[in-house]
Amino acid sequence: MLYDIQSDKLREECGIYGIFARQENVVLSTYWGLYALQHRGQESAGIAVTDGTVMDVQRGMGLVNEVFRHGLPERPGHIAIGHVRYSTTGSSLLQNTQPLMVNYSGGQISMAHNGNLTNAREVRKELEEKGSVFQTSIDSEVIVNLIARSTKQTVEEKIVDSLINIHGAYCLVIMTENKLIGVRDPHGFRPLCLGKLGDGWVLSSESCALDTVGAEFVRDIEPGEMISIDDSGVVSRRFGETDRRAGCVFEYIYFARPDSVIDGQSVYQARFNMGRTLARESRFKADIVISVPDSGTTAALGYSHESGIPFAEGLMKNRYIGRTFIQPEQKKRDMGVRIKLNAVASVVKGKSIVMVDDSIVRGTTSGKIVRMLKEAGATAVHMCVSSPPIGFPCYYGIDTSARKELIASSKQVEEIRQFIGADSLHYLSLEGLHASIGHISAKTLCNACFNCDYPAHTPGEGSCANNKFLFEPAGRK
Amino acid sequence: MLYDIQSDKLREECGIYGIFARQENVVLSTYWGLYALQHRGQESAGIAVTDGTVMDVQRGMGLVNEVFRHGLPERPGHIAIGHVRYSTTGSSLLQNTQPLMVNYSGGQISMAHNGNLTNAREVRKELEEKGSVFQTSIDSEVIVNLIARSTKQTVEEKIVDSLINIHGAYCLVIMTENKLIGVRDPHGFRPLCLGKLGDGWVLSSESCALDTVGAEFVRDIEPGEMISIDDSGVVSRRFGETDRRAGCVFEYIYFARPDSVIDGQSVYQARFNMGRTLARESRFKADIVISVPDSGTTAALGYSHESGIPFAEGLMKNRYIGRTFIQPEQKKRDMGVRIKLNAVASVVKGKSIVMVDDSIVRGTTSGKIVRMLKEAGATAVHMCVSSPPIGFPCYYGIDTSARKELIASSKQVEEIRQFIGADSLHYLSLEGLHASIGHISAKTLCNACFNCDYPAHTPGEGSCANNKFLFEPAGRK
Amino acid sequence: MLYDIQSDKLREECGIYGIFARQENVVLSTYWGLYALQHRGQESAGIAVTDGTVMDVQRGMGLVNEVFRHGLPERPGHIAIGHVRYSTTGSSLLQNTQPLMVNYSGGQISMAHNGNLTNAREVRKELEEKGSVFQTSIDSEVIVNLIARSTKQTVEEKIVDSLINIHGAYCLVIMTENKLIGVRDPHGFRPLCLGKLGDGWVLSSESCALDTVGAEFVRDIEPGEMISIDDSGVVSRRFGETDRRAGCVFEYIYFARPDSVIDGQSVYQARFNMGRTLARESRFKADIVISVPDSGTTAALGYSHESGIPFAEGLMKNRYIGRTFIQPEQKKRDMGVRIKLNAVASVVKGKSIVMVDDSIVRGTTSGKIVRMLKEAGATAVHMCVSSPPIGFPCYYGIDTSARKELIASSKQVEEIRQFIGADSLHYLSLEGLHASIGHISAKTLCNACFNCDYPAHTPGEGSCANNKFLFEPAGRK
Amino acid sequence: MLYDIQSDKLREECGIYGIFARQENVVLSTYWGLYALQHRGQESAGIAVTDGTVMDVQRGMGLVNEVFRHGLPERPGHIAIGHVRYSTTGSSLLQNTQPLMVNYSGGQISMAHNGNLTNAREVRKELEEKGSVFQTSIDSEVIVNLIARSTKQTVEEKIVDSLINIHGAYCLVIMTENKLIGVRDPHGFRPLCLGKLGDGWVLSSESCALDTVGAEFVRDIEPGEMISIDDSGVVSRRFGETDRRAGCVFEYIYFARPDSVIDGQSVYQARFNMGRTLARESRFKADIVISVPDSGTTAALGYSHESGIPFAEGLMKNRYIGRTFIQPEQKKRDMGVRIKLNAVASVVKGKSIVMVDDSIVRGTTSGKIVRMLKEAGATAVHMCVSSPPIGFPCYYGIDTSARKELIASSKQVEEIRQFIGADSLHYLSLEGLHASIGHISAKTLCNACFNCDYPAHTPGEGSCANNKFLFEPAGRK
Repeated sequence: MLYDIQSDKLREECGIYGIFARQENVVLSTYWGLYALQHRGQESAGIAVTDGTVMDVQRGMGLVNEVFRHGLPERPGHIAIGHVRYSTTGSSLLQNTQPLMVNYSGGQISMAHNGNLTNAREVRKELEEKGSVFQTSIDSEVIVNLIARSTKQTVEEKIVDSLINIHGAYCLVIMTENKLIGVRDPHGFRPLCLGKLGDGWVLSSESCALDTVGAEFVRDIEPGEMISIDDSGVVSRRFGETDRRAGCVFEYIYFARPDSVIDGQSVYQARFNMGRTLARESRFKADIVISVPDSGTTAALGYSHESGIPFAEGLMKNRYIGRTFIQPEQKKRDMGVRIKLNAVASVVKGKSIVMVDDSIVRGTTSGKIVRMLKEAGATAVHMCVSSPPIGFPCYYGIDTSARKELIASSKQVEEIRQFIGADSLHYLSLEGLHASIGHISAKTLCNACFNCDYPAHTPGEGSCANNKFLFEPAGRK
Repeated sequence: MLYDIQSDKLREECGIYGIFARQENVVLSTYWGLYALQHRGQESAGIAVTDGTVMDVQRGMGLVNEVFRHGLPERPGHIAIGHVRYSTTGSSLLQNTQPLMVNYSGGQISMAHNGNLTNAREVRKELEEKGSVFQTSIDSEVIVNLIARSTKQTVEEKIVDSLINIHGAYCLVIMTENKLIGVRDPHGFRPLCLGKLGDGWVLSSESCALDTVGAEFVRDIEPGEMISIDDSGVVSRRFGETDRRAGCVFEYIYFARPDSVIDGQSVYQARFNMGRTLARESRFKADIVISVPDSGTTAALGYSHESGIPFAEGLMKNRYIGRTFIQPEQKKRDMGVRIKLNAVASVVKGKSIVMVDDSIVRGTTSGKIVRMLKEAGATAVHMCVSSPPIGFPCYYGIDTSARKELIASSKQVEEIRQFIGADSLHYLSLEGLHASIGHISAKTLCNACFNCDYPAHTPGEGSCANNKFLFEPAGRK
Repeated sequence: MLYDIQSDKLREECGIYGIFARQENVVLSTYWGLYALQHRGQESAGIAVTDGTVMDVQRGMGLVNEVFRHGLPERPGHIAIGHVRYSTTGSSLLQNTQPLMVNYSGGQISMAHNGNLTNAREVRKELEEKGSVFQTSIDSEVIVNLIARSTKQTVEEKIVDSLINIHGAYCLVIMTENKLIGVRDPHGFRPLCLGKLGDGWVLSSESCALDTVGAEFVRDIEPGEMISIDDSGVVSRRFGETDRRAGCVFEYIYFARPDSVIDGQSVYQARFNMGRTLARESRFKADIVISVPDSGTTAALGYSHESGIPFAEGLMKNRYIGRTFIQPEQKKRDMGVRIKLNAVASVVKGKSIVMVDDSIVRGTTSGKIVRMLKEAGATAVHMCVSSPPIGFPCYYGIDTSARKELIASSKQVEEIRQFIGADSLHYLSLEGLHASIGHISAKTLCNACFNCDYPAHTPGEGSCANNKFLFEPAGRK
Repeated sequence: MLYDIQSDKLREECGIYGIFARQENVVLSTYWGLYALQHRGQESAGIAVTDGTVMDVQRGMGLVNEVFRHGLPERPGHIAIGHVRYSTTGSSLLQNTQPLMVNYSGGQISMAHNGNLTNAREVRKELEEKGSVFQTSIDSEVIVNLIARSTKQTVEEKIVDSLINIHGAYCLVIMTENKLIGVRDPHGFRPLCLGKLGDGWVLSSESCALDTVGAEFVRDIEPGEMISIDDSGVVSRRFGETDRRAGCVFEYIYFARPDSVIDGQSVYQARFNMGRTLARESRFKADIVISVPDSGTTAALGYSHESGIPFAEGLMKNRYIGRTFIQPEQKKRDMGVRIKLNAVASVVKGKSIVMVDDSIVRGTTSGKIVRMLKEAGATAVHMCVSSPPIGFPCYYGIDTSARKELIASSKQVEEIRQFIGADSLHYLSLEGLHASIGHISAKTLCNACFNCDYPAHTPGEGSCANNKFLFEPAGRK
């Protein structure tokens, strides 16, 4: 019985990695690459490899080191792709692990996908009408069926031919017997970058994995670009144009590792700037700035830097928290946030505090943390959030809670402040957020979870009409 | 590291089970049904269940009780199907477990298959040309793709429409949201029978599983018959005619449990008769008749009965043998047959022995057993085999060793006798075998592994021309 | 959740094995030896090994192949001992696994024990009074504490000095850094034999393990004998005399493997003779003789031989039964004996049957089997039991059910017959039992579970006074 | 195959926890308490519980959540103790897990131990001479044997009687059927504190566990104090006096969690002060201060605070590092520190850096980190260590590497600087360290690993004579 210690975070759904290299142990490289991308998905992992003739895949539930604790795929090869995934629980978990590996008329193909197609259901239905069968609920299966039905000649053409039909967010790494292909959707929702490792090439969701495996960062894959790698080198092609680039702003706020650089912007610097902007916007007076570790720390340092208020570690995180296995009966005795975090009394006692966190989803955890700090002697807790209120669900690959669970979908800022018991509450403004991300224009980011401005097709569930107040951020502080 | 203690037997590839019953725990019934069919496959198991709305499947590697040791599928339902399987080792084992469960234009469908299609490769290729993708190497996936592409109206019509295209051996249990369907190929290679359990119905590879779950045997499914079961009852339809019934003769010799009845013939009685016939054919003089346990025992009792030579247990089998986990290094120190069998010295010492086994595949184990008996003091070992020499591979669902590994494909009986070190060796004649199976005519059985007379399409690998001697059984004794 | 499919058998508590051999892989030999003794205990296993300097032990819960599935102890060595065990369930299982390994003033010592001390509690208490601590509830810990407190010089003398203080049943294999020692209690309750393997020596509970590892049987260890093996060879010494040899009669009836020879008597022949005697005693008329497999088979063959009634396999056993993992909820839906056994209708239908089983403990399973045979069409079931009624608990190493659960402790034979629904019921007479075991005199066997005549000290719980009718076996048929 | 990603840290050997509470689920409380103490030992864990009559214990290898993933001890009770442990690898791991649970003349007793006895070998030998046996290599077994042999009346008196005989470091939690007892050795090497939870009481190695389970900190157990808790309340007694208090200074430097308070001193504040002192001592000029996460962060903040150089996160740690399971073959391809840490290029590029770490053991990891920072563009790396050079092994419960592996045992500071490739290297002076720990006098701390001044008995291996230079810290910078 698995009990995920309560957290109050949005969840990234996937990390992908691919390598084409004749001089490397590509399976081992993929293993360590996935290790570096583990924060993007902890519920399943998989690696597919080919030696140019046969393709093998090994997938399982759990962390990368759990899935492969009895060994990595043994096939020596020169191409491999890998996938880590977060997913909702359910009995069909195992069959939904990636990479997907199939045979089709063109041979064998493996695929790993990060993102969420917004018309998967429709395309799936159309394919079923034409006689396709589906064994999983993952979007990759829709894409490989489109590829298999394409009448184009080359695998690259087949892929492009397929992508015409799909909408939404997707970064793909695709492996054939002799090629490694990377694709990023025309909006560029999810990140994907290219690295060089000796004579070979690496594709990765984030640049931090390139550092881990010792590869050199080359560049980001462009929105609407397909990269095809084989023994003759790297070929780039544009397969889709868009009037709207829409990189996920939450990669900068929370998902990506701070040591990654996405679309030319250091995640660390973006978060540090968010903290600085928060300081300028909120102008709270306090004795110390603390963060909710670990994700709030970089912004808290920025806040401290800008405000001159010293940064301190007011909350300690249990480093061994993760997946805790306990019995249902124990579950009832919710230990809450105390298992995970503890206030450092010697730091917070008698102090007024600015506490920086990256986001508030349901608000329950924030409330518990504020209470913990007060019990430890904090005289005041001014909470700063390095993102605007999240009022709208994401359809592009993030597991936002159901709309009704988003505290900002039904409460004004002041109501939220009361709910969490903070003395003050400030959300970073959307303008401030964009300014913090620097040379990337607001127009090239997706901010839909904040302002309901979906840059691409949505499944048609949401309407912004009833959420007018969310468009008035000025009144929100 | 799994080391399957060396055996020298042909291996059945699958057992299938299905149940439609509103008053039963269908998952638990399937669990126990598979338990009773475990001898038909020990490497993977799976159960699919539906409540009429949602379908779940749980599959895994290992014995039935290992796969489900952490729990059975939890969905309550009124239809379930299950599968046990033997398969060759390889990295793709997990994805090849059954039942297969897919979505297609007609909804959800699950399928479990016993047998082997002889044109699977061709049909698969045709389907791929039309845009199908394949994620497994199991035949069921070919069949569900055919079903998904059928333009017929009902699921039964779609199935029939699909079966037109396939050749070979297949018994299927198929589950839709509201139906349980059983199919047996027109040759009737593999067994399938129908039972009644309260108000519900059960389909099973063998009748022994009906006994185990408490169901009443109703009848065998006929070759070329499809049985469709739903709330309105059982409907039978003929979907294929054949001029050649071809029930697998090895079900009677070795595969099936003796307490099963297949196509009206008790397996126990057939084996007992084989032993009697062996006695009449061989007329060996000896002090005792023994068997190679457990599969040779019934025939040995028949030999004893006919010849008047007393039956004794000259060999004891370790009941805990099965899947033994040892290290590769240990593997080298082959303990051979001693781990599994031991001669009972007090029984065999100073005795001339008739030893009855059901078959000889490679002959290596037989040789070790003969040596063991001699070392324990047997003065003579006359070996009797309750089947003719196996000289030809099976294409209909049995894992015969490669042709060249079949000792009878390259050696005459006298050469085999020398190889195994027996004082005499007698194989049951094909005529004697048929006579033993009783009211079932030789014409309704498949004897291809003995006489190269393949009753149906083969993949075209084998030719009987070079094996002429095998057609002269008279000279073989 | 482990659910031991209901059986109705007494349970042996242990098997032990030891080897001293410079040319062998002693750990692997012990592994296979325990494999051959697995029927003597399935709940835990362990192997200890020494290279003359360091001693290692590896123990765990489960079958031998489960405990060592991730590898055997890696230390190369020339002495090893092993243990398999059945035990009652409880939270303290793991700490009670054997061999026990301790340090004491004389160095390191490991010990494995088969049997049950009858004054363990008292000696333990005395030792505690002197300052000993106990970490387990196994008798070996009492013995090693006695050894450690002995003021004698050599380890052999210390052992003898210790054994003076203990009563009850014990066969021990003991390992020091340079010796392998075997001990059998003065009554000889449990078996222990010596074998030769190349230049080395093997000790084993049963001779079947010698056969398995390729060792040659040398002789049984005598009651009251200690065997000490080191590089200079084998030394025997007598440490205790008794006026009463008392080998456990149930080893012949049920516990030991038929291919073992104990104290000069083939277990197979003893069982065969029991069947013959049963036939002479019961003189049932019937069409066939069947056995409850597997333990009743040899006696059934003897019955058939003596009576001339043909033997047939009327009941088939599921070979994959063993430890079945199912959920508590499933447990309630007791599938009973059908999971394990199935009647062969073609054998039993319309037949009057003599059914031979080795013993009846609670009688519940026998009743279910009789009912199953009748439902399959048997016209009459005459049950023969190859042991007298079990009316008294064992204090010497067998897990008899509590006295009140023994059906023969409160019911006369006719009442038992009615309870199980058989048409007739005959228990082997004590005289018949003894005659069947042949050259071994009744006076050298322990028959206490049948006649309350305990050959040695008992913990003082039982009294025979209230069970007078049990002394009148004549009236019991 | 377990591969502990290379770290370069000393390792604490144990954490202990105990609870006496009639209104609490004491097992669950112990589980969460151990969770909070997990940093003190990750290789095994165990919980013992009593309901006043029976005592149960459950122990296993791995993290707390792994050991208890299939369930906690089920016995309801009002007293429980627990233990987490780091230990060296070896085949005897499982038997050395704690708590130890034994029966002795006084009943049942369980014990968990943090620390290291310096005369365990001698006492063990003496006990063996008197007839004791030892099944483990843990010190607790020595202590319980002393208790069992004590002729005193009460358990408290027996414990005191035993402690007279032992030297070294020990904090103990002891459980009898009706008492929870806590003991801290007269030097007070290891921490132990008392908390109140409702009507009950808690003992814990660190106060952070009290916070986690919701208990209120009452006070530290004094060196030489025994606390005895039962239904009538808490009784304190002094059992040993010492002229030398000697709390382990490394608890403040590295072992303890920063949110713990030990002997009145906040660990967080101590570390912060170490950083401030480092800044005053080193006076490095740099653009930024960074830490080696996580243990160096608090001192780095202190350095930043004192020096005015901004703190930044120059190194990111992979949060999923821990125990990584990889194959031996992979082990060879050492990924080194890159798996665990990554430089944040946007932070360090073009910057001169002060890098703060808590200690240097072998120096290999420090060298890799410096190189990583330089490769990421750092112009200079000035390393500051918040402890003096470690030149001498610990005999009181810390796993220092062998003396020869301690880089400071054979190299001067300048040599170490060259070895790790830093531009500067400064170790905190012993005086600075003591000043940082504040109101605790240097005389009450154990600094032996820095200055060879062992405050208590040592096993007599070490000599300070050959290490004279270590006493001249002034010359070391």
